Formats: sequence, C-alpha cells, structure tokens
Amino acid sequence: MSPHSIPPAPAAYRTLDTNGIRSFLAGVPTLAARLGGPAARWRIREVSDGNLNNVFLIDGPAGGVCFKQSLPHVRVDPAWKMPLDRTFYEAAYLREIRPCVGALTTDVLHFDPDLFVLVVESLDRHVVLRRGLMEGGAWPDAARAVGAFVAHGTFRTSLLAAPFEEVTRRLDIFSGNRTLTRITVDLILTDPYRDHPRNHWISPDLDRIAAEIRTDPRVRRRVGAMQARFLTCRQALLHGDLHTGSVMVSADDTRIIDGEFACPGPIGFDCGLFIGNLLLHLFACRDADGQDRAVRDVAQFWTSFHDTFLELWHTATRQDGNGDAYAAALFRDDPSGLLKAQADFMQDVAEDTIAFAAMEIIRRIVGYAHVPDFDTIPDMAARAERQGTALALARDLLAAPGSTTSIAGLIDLARDRARRYP
Amino acid sequence: MSPHSIPPAPAAYRTLDTNGIRSFLAGVPTLAARLGGPAARWRIREVSDGNLNNVFLIDGPAGGVCFKQSLPHVRVDPAWKMPLDRTFYEAAYLREIRPCVGALTTDVLHFDPDLFVLVVESLDRHVVLRRGLMEGGAWPDAARAVGAFVAHGTFRTSLLAAPFEEVTRRLDIFSGNRTLTRITVDLILTDPYRDHPRNHWISPDLDRIAAEIRTDPRVRRRVGAMQARFLTCRQALLHGDLHTGSVMVSADDTRIIDGEFACPGPIGFDCGLFIGNLLLHLFACRDADGQDRAVRDVAQFWTSFHDTFLELWHTATRQDGNGDAYAAALFRDDPSGLLKAQADFMQDVAEDTIAFAAMEIIRRIVGYAHVPDFDTIPDMAARAERQGTALALARDLLAAPGSTTSIAGLIDLARDRARRYP
Repeated sequence: MSPHSIPPAPAAYRTLDTNGIRSFLAGVPTLAARLGGPAARWRIREVSDGNLNNVFLIDGPAGGVCFKQSLPHVRVDPAWKMPLDRTFYEAAYLREIRPCVGALTTDVLHFDPDLFVLVVESLDRHVVLRRGLMEGGAWPDAARAVGAFVAHGTFRTSLLAAPFEEVTRRLDIFSGNRTLTRITVDLILTDPYRDHPRNHWISPDLDRIAAEIRTDPRVRRRVGAMQARFLTCRQALLHGDLHTGSVMVSADDTRIIDGEFACPGPIGFDCGLFIGNLLLHLFACRDADGQDRAVRDVAQFWTSFHDTFLELWHTATRQDGNGDAYAAALFRDDPSGLLKAQADFMQDVAEDTIAFAAMEIIRRIVGYAHVPDFDTIPDMAARAERQGTALALARDLLAAPGSTTSIAGLIDLARDRARRYP
Repeated sequence: MSPHSIPPAPAAYRTLDTNGIRSFLAGVPTLAARLGGPAARWRIREVSDGNLNNVFLIDGPAGGVCFKQSLPHVRVDPAWKMPLDRTFYEAAYLREIRPCVGALTTDVLHFDPDLFVLVVESLDRHVVLRRGLMEGGAWPDAARAVGAFVAHGTFRTSLLAAPFEEVTRRLDIFSGNRTLTRITVDLILTDPYRDHPRNHWISPDLDRIAAEIRTDPRVRRRVGAMQARFLTCRQALLHGDLHTGSVMVSADDTRIIDGEFACPGPIGFDCGLFIGNLLLHLFACRDADGQDRAVRDVAQFWTSFHDTFLELWHTATRQDGNGDAYAAALFRDDPSGLLKAQADFMQDVAEDTIAFAAMEIIRRIVGYAHVPDFDTIPDMAARAERQGTALALARDLLAAPGSTTSIAGLIDLARDRARRYP
C-alpha cells in the first residue's frame, strides 16, 4: 500500500475491549440514555465483518447502538499498519450526506476524536444485502433505494447543486482520506493489471484469462484512462466502497453503511462498484429466479439513480439554482437544451459505470479481496468456469468500450453470458 | 463576483507608497544587497498594468527587483473589495513550478505574509508579449517557450508524474484560491452566455452575434460542459491566466509571469487561453506578415507543448515513474500501447483547448475585460467587423465541436476566416 507515513496513534488512543466499550458508552449521557437501564445489563456482541475495523452491537433495555473503532492496523492483518483516521472520514461522510439521503443511511450518534470511535444507529433487524442475496432472498426495493442514495448524495455534493466555493471546501476535506484512497488505487485500479503478490485466483483454471487481462493492450489503455478518471474527475462526494456488503436490508428498509472510503471522484465509480457486485452475484447464481432478480436489480438501480438525479437537476434549474457547472442561467429558458446536456452528462456517467463495474469484477476474482458469492458453488472447476465467464465479460467491456455504451446494453450482454448457468 | 466573504485585512497590512517600499526593501538584507548602494539612490517606478495589484520596478546600483502588493480591492475599481491572498497564491505557484520550468518564469526573492508583498526578479529589459505583437515585433521563440512552460508545469504537477497523495496535497493548496477562480468562472465561463451588466461590446454592430452566442442551444450545451470540465477535471496545476499579457519577452528570453490565478484544472485551459489570445491578435493584425506570425505562433506553441509533454511522459514511463494515472507498470513493456494512450489523452487536451480558446475569444470581445489588440484599428466599423468574424469563428467552434477536433484544423479554419484581412 506504500503509505507515505503512518502518524503515531494519539496518546489517548487505546483499543477498547468489551469492558472498555461498556465504560465508554456509560460515559456519554445521550448514548447511555438510548440504551437505557444499568450499563451492566447491556449485551455487547462483536460483529466485525469487514477487513478494517472493530465493530460491536450493543443492546440495552431501551434500545441499541453500533460501535465502530479504528485499529492502528488492518483488522485481519496486524502487520499491515494503518492510521486511525478512517472513522473520522466515515463520520464526516455521514454528516455531509445524511441531510440529503435521510433514512437511507445511519445517523451519527457520537464520534470520539481521541479513540476514533464512531457510534451509529444499530441495524440489528437488518442483514447484509450480499448475504441476503447469497441465501436466495428477494429484496425487491433494495436496488431502487441504493440508486436513490447515490443520486441524492452525488447530486447535492456536485457543482450542479452549489457554487464551486462550497463544493471545493467540502471535497477538499475528503482529499485527506489518503490511506483508504490508496487502497482503492492499488487494489482496484492497478494490481490486477500487473504481476503482484497480492493477486490470487483459482489456479491453473484462471491463469490464462488473468494473463490475458494483464497483457491485453486495449485493456491497459482503458485501465490507464480510468485511473486518470478516478483520480482527476471530482464530480461529487462518493461513498467509495459501494458493494453489496455495504448495504443492509430488512423487509421494508434499506440502509447504506461503511462510508469510510468516502472521497471526491466520478459518479460512475459508485454506480460501477454496485453494478459490478450485482453482476458477480449474477454469475454465481445457481437458480434462474436469482439470476432474473440480479438482472432486474441492475436495471432498477440504474433507472432509480438516473431518474432521481435528473429530476434533482431539473428542479435546481427551474428554481434558478446556483451551481457553477451547467449554470441555471444557461438552461432556465431552454428545457430541450437542458435535456440534451443531461443526456451527454449521463452518457459519460454510464460509460464510467461500465468500465468501473468491469474493473470491480476483475479485482474481485483475481485481485486481493474476493467476494464470497462464488463460495456457494462447492465444485472448484464449476466455480472457476463461472468466474472465467465473468472475467471474459469484464475484459471485453474494457477492451472494446465502444461496443457497450449503455446500461441496457451491459444488461443484455451479461444476461446472455450468464444464460448457460445454472 | 459574489464572494462568500471577504476576510478583513490583517492588522499589520498597509498599502505601501514609494517611501514605504524603500523602507521595506531596505529592511530585507537579501533585497537590499541585490539592489546595492544606499536606499536613497534606488529608483522606484510604478508599472501597475493589470487590473488587480500595485506593481513597482526598483533599480539600484547593483541590480533591480519587481515589487508586487495585493490591494484590499481591485486596483482599477476600489469599490470592488477583494481579499489580499492573491500574492500568496502567486508566490506558492512560482515555488511549485520554478523547479521544473527553470528560467521560463521569475524567481521568488521574498514574500511577506502580513503585507502580501511579493518581490521577484525585475524584467526591465523585457516587454509584454501582447504589446510587442501589437507593435509588429517578431518574437520567434516566444510561443515555443510558452509551450514548453505549460508542458513542464502541468506534467510535473499531474498524476502522470507523481503518486496521488503528493499531487492532491499540492492541488488542494490552490483550491483555496477562490477569489480569483470566481473571477474566471464568472467572467470567462458564465457572463458572456447570459445577460449581465458587466458585458459590453461595440454596439449596435455586434448586437446580433452577441445575442446569437447567448442563445444558441448548441453553444449553451458546450459551454455548460466546459464549466463542468474547468471545475471538476483536476489534471494539473494551471497558471490560470495565460494570455499574451502574462508573457514577457526580450530578444533572447521569454518569461511567464502573473501566476496569481493558479488553480487545479484541465491542461487545455492554459493552452486555450494562450491560443485564444494569439487568435485575437490574428484577427486584429493589419499586415500579412503579422498574420503569418500569429498563425505560426499557434502551431509552434502547440507543437512545443505537445512534444515536450509526451517526451516527459515517455521518460517517466521508461524510468518506472510512480504516477498513479496511466501507471508505468501498465505501459513499461508496451510502447505502442503507451503511444495510443498518449494520443487519446492529447485528443482530450486538444478538444478542451479549442473550446477554451473559443470562450476566451468571446469573453475578450463581449465580456467585461477586453484586449487592446483591436485598438490599433481606429475605424470602429472595421474593428467591429473583425471582432464579429472572430466571434463567429468562436461560436462555430463551440456549436459544432465535432467539426474541428485538432489544433491543425483550428489553425486552418482561423487562417481561412482571417484571410479577408488586412
């Protein structure tokens, strides 16, 4: 990860164990009141699931909270040292976007800048969308909700909605999230396209396609351009890690969590990661209904994102909004011109989305951090075959970007390629 | 300019008159030594020429310096209040780029953060390129030098040359240059495309073309996209105000000055402003030789920028550079792939350049701040006719961006349209 420097943990920092967590929560009156009753009765369960942080759910007689603490290293690899500031960025992200996405994410209940502790609402009646999908569940509203989340969060932090002074001040805060952005740059945008010891895959089955992806000059050229796009195109504040493991669902509620990778960037990056993970699920699906649902989810996500975003833009223009890009003064009296400008803009977002979705598929099969969706297929040869088909799709999308330029086209192509399974 | 807030000048700030300047310079040993002799013998001349700052040249027995001080208002309009930080950004810009552009700009000799005084090398044997061109002079090396300046300054501050952590830290400093960036956004990118009291032109001659530019839906759409491009595409650190008045020339030396508008942005913005001003000169030229020189200057500027930039990129890749965009790891073993990626990249820069050149032409004829090049034509009808021809060219470039996508094409078109003059 080649961090430039790891600042030492502040003197007051210590990693809290369950006793420490109990005392900490008891010391914050609003949190103690939310839990209710004597602290000794609170039930504390560790639910750390991601690679980075300690996470605990705490239940009291009156209610529950979710406790998240940064560690001075990667949780799953203590030798991999890391600064503590990631919970700061997650708290900052939630504070920025909560006003526009409402109950599509969680409320920040408390942030402690010495211990790097973030306390948010507990979602203990929810399950992780990825797990829910793997278990064959149907979450008919989840993809629509995630699309609306991306639309609101990115529109409101973009230059379509506000003067550049306000947008730049906000985005510059998240420029500081260098440690986690470095992970994105290395693991998603670079490593799978070079020989690197962090890469791994089912071998020898996938050796050939992995090598083809690393060496195809058309893929390299597109990947180079997407590296530049991710790092130079500051369209909006991104979630930055919007895979199906960052979404919690219940029968009637969807929440997007884990915003610690928040950074400025192109909107298609958030869209591409989410769609990429739905497509990974599609290729791992063992039943036709699940496949149909995965395809429908891609379409519903995109339609929801697209329509919500453009509606927000129309409203801002009608109300003579003060965004500095596509300034309202130019389009207030020219609705058909605005429609064309919006179509151009969305075409760029769609093309970014397709490329980043392809790169997400690739890094989740041949890179460092794989997805568990394929674990439901016990036969390794069968698993590798499906993964190889997904990789070939991703390779083709990057190698010939002009041949698939719409999300509808992407859906058709993916459905075609996945049809041989189950 | 709708600044969000003007911070009060610091208590220690005062605008220095010639006596104040003399005492100030005498109090800085390195500057006093550079000037030499007793302070009473220094000759102090005001040469304020731009709209914003006080500028003085000071000559002593041993040498000279250039003294520049921010005022708490626009120099030419004391009612237009403005924060003082612009000399800070000019000093910061010079310090960033001087190591890579060498003697193509001036050395920072001193910066005073209380008085917002910047002292740089004196260029008293140089003339302003715009004035030199207007007087019919030939500066055969100037355009090439400016091209090399843009190539070195933008390459070294881009993600092609350095990891994103380093690039972001550097660019975020210049995100703070909000006052002058607001001027760019309003005067170049927005005002000419709306009714605004700051706009003015030769009326009634140019009323019709000015209205066509304001209302053409194709122009609006392209301008909206370029607003977004300027504000979201952080390819490099830009000079930000690279017109022919920001270039000083002598028989054998070219220097780029006045970097107070420095900001992150798309490289084509610097290229476009420079080319736009050469084209304005072309349409103002009263002799065929001058026209030929203007056309040659556009070609030499672009060739110099293009070739220098790509050579720097080739070298960085060969030396296994650590830039995060178009990472060396992808292209080290694939020279033909790198050439194609570079062609894609330069195509984008060329298209940005053409659009920003067109917007510079427009704002310099119908916006707030005009260029003096046309003042050499005393007959107002003749002046308006040439300006109208330049405006029509700019309008066409914005309305049909697909019809001129190379600098060679731009040159052909401009030469054709200017041929009817002189």
